[in-house]
Amino acid sequence: MSRVIRLAVIPGDGIGPEVVAEALKVLDAVAPGADVTFEKTPFELGAARFLATGDVLTDDDLASIASHDAILLGAVGGVPGDPRLKDANIERGLLLKLRFALDHYVNLRPTTIFPGVTSPLANPGEVDFVVVREGTEGPYVGNGGAIRVGTPHEIANEVSVNTAFGVERVVRFAFDLANSRPRKKLTLVHKNNVLVFSGNLWMRTVNAVATEYPDVAVDYLHVDAATIFFVTNPAKFDIIVTDNLFGDILTDLAGAISGGIGLASSGNINPTGAFPSMFEPVHGSAPDIAGQQIADPTAAILSVALLLDQQGLPEAATRIRTAVTGDLAGRTAASGSRTTAEVGDAIVTLLSSELVS
Amino acid sequence: MSRVIRLAVIPGDGIGPEVVAEALKVLDAVAPGADVTFEKTPFELGAARFLATGDVLTDDDLASIASHDAILLGAVGGVPGDPRLKDANIERGLLLKLRFALDHYVNLRPTTIFPGVTSPLANPGEVDFVVVREGTEGPYVGNGGAIRVGTPHEIANEVSVNTAFGVERVVRFAFDLANSRPRKKLTLVHKNNVLVFSGNLWMRTVNAVATEYPDVAVDYLHVDAATIFFVTNPAKFDIIVTDNLFGDILTDLAGAISGGIGLASSGNINPTGAFPSMFEPVHGSAPDIAGQQIADPTAAILSVALLLDQQGLPEAATRIRTAVTGDLAGRTAASGSRTTAEVGDAIVTLLSSELVS
Ligand SMILES: CC(C)[C@H](C(=O)O)[C@@H](O)C(=O)O
Ligand SMILES: CC(C)[C@H](C(=O)O)[C@@H](O)C(=O)O
Repeated sequence: MSRVIRLAVIPGDGIGPEVVAEALKVLDAVAPGADVTFEKTPFELGAARFLATGDVLTDDDLASIASHDAILLGAVGGVPGDPRLKDANIERGLLLKLRFALDHYVNLRPTTIFPGVTSPLANPGEVDFVVVREGTEGPYVGNGGAIRVGTPHEIANEVSVNTAFGVERVVRFAFDLANSRPRKKLTLVHKNNVLVFSGNLWMRTVNAVATEYPDVAVDYLHVDAATIFFVTNPAKFDIIVTDNLFGDILTDLAGAISGGIGLASSGNINPTGAFPSMFEPVHGSAPDIAGQQIADPTAAILSVALLLDQQGLPEAATRIRTAVTGDLAGRTAASGSRTTAEVGDAIVTLLSSELVS
Repeated sequence: MSRVIRLAVIPGDGIGPEVVAEALKVLDAVAPGADVTFEKTPFELGAARFLATGDVLTDDDLASIASHDAILLGAVGGVPGDPRLKDANIERGLLLKLRFALDHYVNLRPTTIFPGVTSPLANPGEVDFVVVREGTEGPYVGNGGAIRVGTPHEIANEVSVNTAFGVERVVRFAFDLANSRPRKKLTLVHKNNVLVFSGNLWMRTVNAVATEYPDVAVDYLHVDAATIFFVTNPAKFDIIVTDNLFGDILTDLAGAISGGIGLASSGNINPTGAFPSMFEPVHGSAPDIAGQQIADPTAAILSVALLLDQQGLPEAATRIRTAVTGDLAGRTAASGSRTTAEVGDAIVTLLSSELVS
């Protein structure tokens, strides 16, 4: 009997359902070869659900999601500026709530320029790096507040919280990953000349853990300088480890230089296994193009490859990446007009020809 | 009798003195035509001074600098990792101290791709935008702290402080600037879906001030999305207004896409005139290439143009920009081997030919 993986599926808003449909199609196509079956539970969450019921994420939803083996999320968020969503903050109440509640302390975001994909950079070189973004601390903790709101004396504060516990566990993960790769290079990105307390903690932690990984070469860049290298020499990076906010900024930039956020996948991972990990494309719900079958499902499909890696099924993950690479290499101006479903179908076809060859 | 402008000059460390020498050369070349004289007071500040005396910036230094009409700064900071500088933090103790003490609430950073300059972007388009970075608030305030340092229970916090007073004044400056430009476009960059309290303050302030500028078109981008447009369509921007940290990150990226941080100028401005404004290249002290006469003085020279603008001498500023544009357009592979002084000399020569023609 094949292993059953219980998958919570959150298609979400906008283009989310369209790209998730293709990701599931691809997942089901590789499952038999990996001798697994995916048992899927759909969760209707996001702006649409909020508008229908007033709920963003109930305790029951959360408990039910948490009882699964893994989560696939499309994208959440309504039309920007929709007055009915003014008080919802779907991002904080749903996406960040899941990351924090399920202790997704590693936000894994690989960046590759696939052969045949056009980068906006004139000479990007061979780009293949992974940003290990901390997922449960930093300025994302929601410890802000404001007084005298709406008066000329308003003060609004945001607190970035960083702990030895939280920094060390993600730094260890990053070193393990660096150590498993051919180049074995790790770059800490922070702003320790300005954010001296948190920067100091990150720096000391990296230096301490580095002694246990003598084969890993370590360096440091301020976040502002890192953005320069992202456009002048992105090939220099192997593993980047950084805080939640810097990681957010750098990975959108990484998506852009590698040919577009439509190809950028991510995993919100709890490496202890205490809670299910969650996989999602880096892109948003793009309500302006929703329902038109023009969204590229590749980021969602590559996110499913990360899911398979995390579930201990690296061969199945590699099959997907190989098929995606083939599809991207074969894209022409004409194939740019394929529907979302046609891209998914093409990748499924490539998957079956992999088996034949 | 010509107007005397009293200029505090802080050459600083590394390549600072070399690029400042050229900037002063250019300043003195345009001064007679503008009927002004620059009376310069040098201040020896930076890592070298700290190593010699143990001082970063004394109260006397600060008072004396503050008594000038304007400040020109090269770059400060010693060799990274120098153990003797471990406790100095020249950035916080000198550069940020000056910005905060002299209430430089506008950090003005223009980005242009000059004709003939190669961008790392394949198709940058016509790039000409200005980042108006807030200079006295946000995560830069130094309101961080840590407890249980060095133990597994360490907690390091950083507080971003944002006030209605501080946000409104920089937003007004940005609207004025946008209103004075042909495209009249202003983009607020923040991360208001995560940093909800400060983001809310920025958003409300921009929306309120916008009602007084009916001709200025306003939009909003999350900082992560902004980095995408910086590489896919930087020509879309006119004026960007943003907080201290986002502005720091975006302006290094802007420098990179416009052909290198060696061309990026900046002004730390107190528009009230209560304290002198300070002009500096965006680049650092680059100790690795110091004293070799290979640094490009263009960023420092363009910073002097910003100084002239701020001193109410826009014609002199334009003369410098025209000469720099001519120098950049005429650069060839061969001219890349000019010394720092030769670049300054070439720009001075172009300045005098402007008068002749
Ligand atoms: C939607 C938003 C809260 C989120 C983030 O900032 O983490 C997104 O930008 C991302 O990178 O996944
Ligand atoms: C040196 C550093 C403190 C400074 C900053 O972060 O503001 C620099 O990066 C800049 O942009 O001027």
